[in-house]
Amino acid sequence: MAPGGWGRPGWRSIGWDDAPQPCALAVSVPDPSPELLQRAAGVRRAAMALGQLGDAERRGAVLAMADALEADAALIVAANQADLEVAAAENLAPALVARLKLDAAKLAAAIEGVRQVAALPDPLGVRQLHRELDDGLVLERLSVPLGVVGVIFEARPDAVMQIASLAIRSGNGAILKGGREASRSCAAILAALQRGLAASTVAPAALELLTSREESLALLRLDGLVDLIIPRGSNALVQFIQDNTRIPVLGHADGICHLYVDQEVDIAQALRVALDSKTQYPAACNAIETLLLHRAVAPRFLEAALPAFASAGVELRGDAAACALGVPQAAAEADWGTEYSDLILAVRLVDSLEQALAHIARHGSRHTDAICTTNTAAAETFLRGVDSAGVYLNCSTRFADGFRYGFGAEVGISTQTLPPRGPVGLEGLVTYRYLLRGTGHIAADYASGERAFTHRDLPL
Amino acid sequence: MAPGGWGRPGWRSIGWDDAPQPCALAVSVPDPSPELLQRAAGVRRAAMALGQLGDAERRGAVLAMADALEADAALIVAANQADLEVAAAENLAPALVARLKLDAAKLAAAIEGVRQVAALPDPLGVRQLHRELDDGLVLERLSVPLGVVGVIFEARPDAVMQIASLAIRSGNGAILKGGREASRSCAAILAALQRGLAASTVAPAALELLTSREESLALLRLDGLVDLIIPRGSNALVQFIQDNTRIPVLGHADGICHLYVDQEVDIAQALRVALDSKTQYPAACNAIETLLLHRAVAPRFLEAALPAFASAGVELRGDAAACALGVPQAAAEADWGTEYSDLILAVRLVDSLEQALAHIARHGSRHTDAICTTNTAAAETFLRGVDSAGVYLNCSTRFADGFRYGFGAEVGISTQTLPPRGPVGLEGLVTYRYLLRGTGHIAADYASGERAFTHRDLPL
Repeated sequence: MAPGGWGRPGWRSIGWDDAPQPCALAVSVPDPSPELLQRAAGVRRAAMALGQLGDAERRGAVLAMADALEADAALIVAANQADLEVAAAENLAPALVARLKLDAAKLAAAIEGVRQVAALPDPLGVRQLHRELDDGLVLERLSVPLGVVGVIFEARPDAVMQIASLAIRSGNGAILKGGREASRSCAAILAALQRGLAASTVAPAALELLTSREESLALLRLDGLVDLIIPRGSNALVQFIQDNTRIPVLGHADGICHLYVDQEVDIAQALRVALDSKTQYPAACNAIETLLLHRAVAPRFLEAALPAFASAGVELRGDAAACALGVPQAAAEADWGTEYSDLILAVRLVDSLEQALAHIARHGSRHTDAICTTNTAAAETFLRGVDSAGVYLNCSTRFADGFRYGFGAEVGISTQTLPPRGPVGLEGLVTYRYLLRGTGHIAADYASGERAFTHRDLPL
Repeated sequence: MAPGGWGRPGWRSIGWDDAPQPCALAVSVPDPSPELLQRAAGVRRAAMALGQLGDAERRGAVLAMADALEADAALIVAANQADLEVAAAENLAPALVARLKLDAAKLAAAIEGVRQVAALPDPLGVRQLHRELDDGLVLERLSVPLGVVGVIFEARPDAVMQIASLAIRSGNGAILKGGREASRSCAAILAALQRGLAASTVAPAALELLTSREESLALLRLDGLVDLIIPRGSNALVQFIQDNTRIPVLGHADGICHLYVDQEVDIAQALRVALDSKTQYPAACNAIETLLLHRAVAPRFLEAALPAFASAGVELRGDAAACALGVPQAAAEADWGTEYSDLILAVRLVDSLEQALAHIARHGSRHTDAICTTNTAAAETFLRGVDSAGVYLNCSTRFADGFRYGFGAEVGISTQTLPPRGPVGLEGLVTYRYLLRGTGHIAADYASGERAFTHRDLPL
């Protein structure tokens, strides 16, 4: 799938949209070596200092990173060439080679992406709460950086630039571990990024690149030094990480998205939405895997849809009722719970909106689900009744993306129920602190009833 | 410690403030039984329906719960009596007995607490984002319930009432597991709560009580059915849970809180704050464990503090410099990392604010740390430089509490870095959904450049 499919050349979303990759997970997680602990502590120290810098300094550091990448462009492309040669010698799969490749044009686009991150509004220092607890006792809640994020990602070297710029912009240190196949590219990129930081007020130690497999596993044991792990890879990788770390994981399970076509519907519009939701980028987690059709509309819809999907190369797998209407292949029970990540779509007929809701509740992954309907009541019932990160009316599920939501950049897409949920922008890299300023206030005075809280909200 | 110590009789914070209790953790986590899966699925179904109810209905349900508790008061107190008799026969520790005890007055106060939860503003349906992505394509982010929370708590039966009311108020189902010692009390309370729900529009199945140890362990394996685990117990329990579940945990590690007394300080005020921070409820996680004294102020401070702490029954343990100034007992290295939960306080002299910050960064648990100073620059350096959930100036660390922050109720206190952090009110039980309404919009039009996003924020 061409990067252009994301609407910004060469600067793809940091989702977990790529097709799953094999990954040997049957390993035990080693304790961090003293050397790794020392490096991680160094990142943490640098991050603490970075977190106290102002907006202009962090913005300047990201721009300096972009400049350094530009200055090192030839070196980086050459390092990537070396990676590509090894990949060719090792017969790496073409899809992986395509991801690995970083030519001058792709690099230029990635550098432009870094500059866009610099231009994002400051996520830090936002006052979320401002409250007088009592006379002279004032509480504030301010957004602050998380601290240090650990990122484990695959072959794509452009991810290093994007994640590093997002981390620095939001005042965080980052420990990065890229795929082995991209090791030379990642090292060249990180050297440039650190040189850029050296020309700014941010310590280059705020970014670290792990190179060995042991280190990347031991990263999972760096609780206290790493505040969030962002895995980018297969579901198996994410689950392995969740099972082997106490550090919170910005996780992503399957994307089993549904489109329900209601009985009252603009068929041409619904078909257009269905085609886009399946085919605009089938490997994406926000592509639909199952089409639910109200029985009353199924004949008319399928009459138009069967040739349209066929000419788009989509293989349809239907339940008995759908097959009776011409869907060529039968779906097995397992199809309702499968993320194809491919041009395959399961089709099921339902008797009612309620049955569609029940199907989604049972088989969905709470990612993104859509309804096409012209009936307002049905639309609102669906929007209220589906417990997914995104619930859509009359539009493609492919809009579930941080850039498309207007976040400017995307840390990832979370299918956890807890916030941050869905496409996560820079706010996924910040937390908050409560600051309380008094003049000698003590709790005993309130426990005794001598004083009482006022709890008066002040202007933000 | 009398409940009155919390400023609201009989209605203590749902923190993890109680002294750690022994807990046999060397067990394996069993898979959920079909019966448990069925019950959990029932809670989930009830919760999905509950989550779609309006403010008035959820408020009414909580009030009905309060009414039912009132009607069953005699039964509940009798059940508690039975628990207390067994506890006496088993020689339960007095502190546990005190927690277990639920007499008529304590029950009345707890019921009043349930009514207070009903009165809290609706946490659901709050529009957090409202944005036009393009003409006719509008994105909203609305607060919604988490779904189902699993709560594992200790002997205190009043916790059932508080957690259940918070869950229902925020549209969530709850699976509760209380301590074995409180089994009769919890069963009587839950029966009343469910009877209350039966008189409302909320299905009684939204609340479930687990009774066996196997069930409470298997609760950790209910991913997909339970969205958040809230453990209330010792650090060992919390860590065991975090290590044995993929479900997010609203976790709480140690509360190792510090008070730093700067060289420029109102000594009388600082002493008052220090005494309150240590003694107002020493078993609380927000009590200080270490006092850091600037070397320049230490002699004058300790001159006043030594007799004051002695008469408050506080055992001081000092570093060599503090001992030289009269602190009677020497601190070992381990003291700097110990949560005493008792009338013990470690005292260390530092040469500078920077040294105090370094000590806190090294030994603190990012819970709550305070500075006493009259120097504005020192205050701001401390407030910016300490990465804890609460950073305080010239006031007691004991204010780190949801009620005191004005949240009206507290789900717990989180020492994780990610939000929700610090004292967590009802917002800890809600998440959000993105709703996107279009009129046939598809992603391909934006990828091709045929259409462009407007990303225009609309009024909230």
